Amino acid sequence: MGNHVETLRWNGSAIEMIDQRILPHRIEYIACDSAQSVAKAIRDMVVRGAPAIGVAAAYGVALEAILRKNEASNVFSTSLEEGFKALAASRPTAVNLFWALDRMRKLWETHQAKNQPELADIFLGTAHEILEEDIRINRAMGEYGASLLPDGSRVLTHCNAGALATAGHGTALGVFRSAVEAGKRISVFADETRPFLQGARLTAWEMVQENIPVTLITDNMSGHLMSRGEIDAVVVGTDRVAANGDVANKIGTYMVAVLAKRHNIPFYVACPLSTIDLSLATGEEIPIEERPVDEIKGFRDCHWAPEGVSIRNPAFDVTPAELVTALITEKGIVDNTTLTAGELADFVKKNQ
Amino acid sequence: MGNHVETLRWNGSAIEMIDQRILPHRIEYIACDSAQSVAKAIRDMVVRGAPAIGVAAAYGVALEAILRKNEASNVFSTSLEEGFKALAASRPTAVNLFWALDRMRKLWETHQAKNQPELADIFLGTAHEILEEDIRINRAMGEYGASLLPDGSRVLTHCNAGALATAGHGTALGVFRSAVEAGKRISVFADETRPFLQGARLTAWEMVQENIPVTLITDNMSGHLMSRGEIDAVVVGTDRVAANGDVANKIGTYMVAVLAKRHNIPFYVACPLSTIDLSLATGEEIPIEERPVDEIKGFRDCHWAPEGVSIRNPAFDVTPAELVTALITEKGIVDNTTLTAGELADFVKKNQ
Repeated sequence: MGNHVETLRWNGSAIEMIDQRILPHRIEYIACDSAQSVAKAIRDMVVRGAPAIGVAAAYGVALEAILRKNEASNVFSTSLEEGFKALAASRPTAVNLFWALDRMRKLWETHQAKNQPELADIFLGTAHEILEEDIRINRAMGEYGASLLPDGSRVLTHCNAGALATAGHGTALGVFRSAVEAGKRISVFADETRPFLQGARLTAWEMVQENIPVTLITDNMSGHLMSRGEIDAVVVGTDRVAANGDVANKIGTYMVAVLAKRHNIPFYVACPLSTIDLSLATGEEIPIEERPVDEIKGFRDCHWAPEGVSIRNPAFDVTPAELVTALITEKGIVDNTTLTAGELADFVKKNQ
Repeated sequence: MGNHVETLRWNGSAIEMIDQRILPHRIEYIACDSAQSVAKAIRDMVVRGAPAIGVAAAYGVALEAILRKNEASNVFSTSLEEGFKALAASRPTAVNLFWALDRMRKLWETHQAKNQPELADIFLGTAHEILEEDIRINRAMGEYGASLLPDGSRVLTHCNAGALATAGHGTALGVFRSAVEAGKRISVFADETRPFLQGARLTAWEMVQENIPVTLITDNMSGHLMSRGEIDAVVVGTDRVAANGDVANKIGTYMVAVLAKRHNIPFYVACPLSTIDLSLATGEEIPIEERPVDEIKGFRDCHWAPEGVSIRNPAFDVTPAELVTALITEKGIVDNTTLTAGELADFVKKNQ
């Protein structure tokens, strides 16, 4: 990616997002110029991936302020509040969204004496900062994570925790990129990740773009490959980590983690500190989004489910801390199997 | 099904197979009148499911004999031998295919004194018998299996071990049908089963046809539902069981079994005796078919994988006996967790 395609880019007056629903066949950008349009893009999965939607939400707030900066102050405030509300309601599971919105709201409180155009500038500056920070964080995580992968590793990943899920480099795929940059030979297995097919469409595509060897499999194959000794490690991203180290991530992650444990394969989670939610004691408290059932009936214009069938579509699951070998953060590696109560919180507070 | 749709039907001169590649949207039959055309239908998955391809193979032999019955004896023999060969090469994992071919070959040996038209009649009579026997076996398995499911059970199944995988009633789905016939309230979760989508297209459709409540999920969701206490039992079919009780079945079965074990959910395998291969000591010896990579690139005309990605497509996996609570056979239930060496063989030999 890097030089090829940007997930999110500022064009001077709007945030442009690569439309992840139509990749890899078409590369098109959708420009959003308000909080409401950014919220819709998040909800419809034009942009997805926990860090990327955090960045997008920050731009959503900034764009709303820019759009309303010459309006009366009550209109400005109301629009901004409604913007915050729409963005917060766009998707429930990834905490980075709420982290970014909290950061923007604190900025508003800190700078309430400023006039509206000044405030809009401050919001925009912070959105740019969050975007650039995300890339720096991913690079730092990548280097820590790369140290965990021996030369020649065959690594499995689920969903897309790549450049497309972030402002660039990626979390899990950032680990692979950094390992390759460090001269290691890495080959990747990508779960296709039904129903949205992030693995088949996005992860496989990102890896092909950079000539990192990648093999696509369906979601039900990783256990078989593990049992045959064909996978050395698993690296995934995450949407929210509870204070005890439980990890919410794309549906199916839990099954991969259980299989990895059975086969003594290390299971790593690339996790920026902004993804750790110390307000939740355990993963049971993490809200799990149920998405529209149409996603399960087929893909795009291709439908295969019969009429009359019920459907469930939980978009995430929770992997208990005991199955997670380590969290890879931008401040170092946290051994998750020996976490004691409060230890993760201490680590986060020390490094914030 | 039963009254609605037949998987395989004899039309007086050919075996007609419902085309399982285009279900549930179109109901079309393909007629085969030779061993070669039956072999092609099996290879292309017009017909699939271990018991159903066993029945189809028997008709393939009979049809070849009918087609050649007025030819010179060397042509007759050579065509029949080539028919056996093509059928045996059509798919490697399901043992029922080889079981049916062995049965037809023994018939040929027993009746070698007969003239060709007489032999063709004998083959056809036996093919009819195998078809009817399969339905009787499924009904017997269904009753034994139903006794394992309490009223109100929420049962998960993977792939399609239904009427469409057999001559009728089904193996795993036969258990559900028999439970419902016995007045039990059963609700079914169907894994969609990528890449061929047997669960979404065939299992969900069969259950909808009979008003058995069915919920479609993708292959990566069952672990999450198990962790939330939403699944009470798993019932699947099988393509081959080794002498030690290891079970080969559709790719992904192993992952479901590992998750079921973790959550103390009983994992049952509906298994006609013809599926048990005593010649193989363990599941490691079962050949695992790797199917064409195009199946993973998308579905039908819908393609989503990027150019340049490698692909793996193992069509089956092996679930070790320790994960299988019980085998449900037409002669009773075999507790698979306490099997001692030779015990399964004794059971099979006693009941053959």
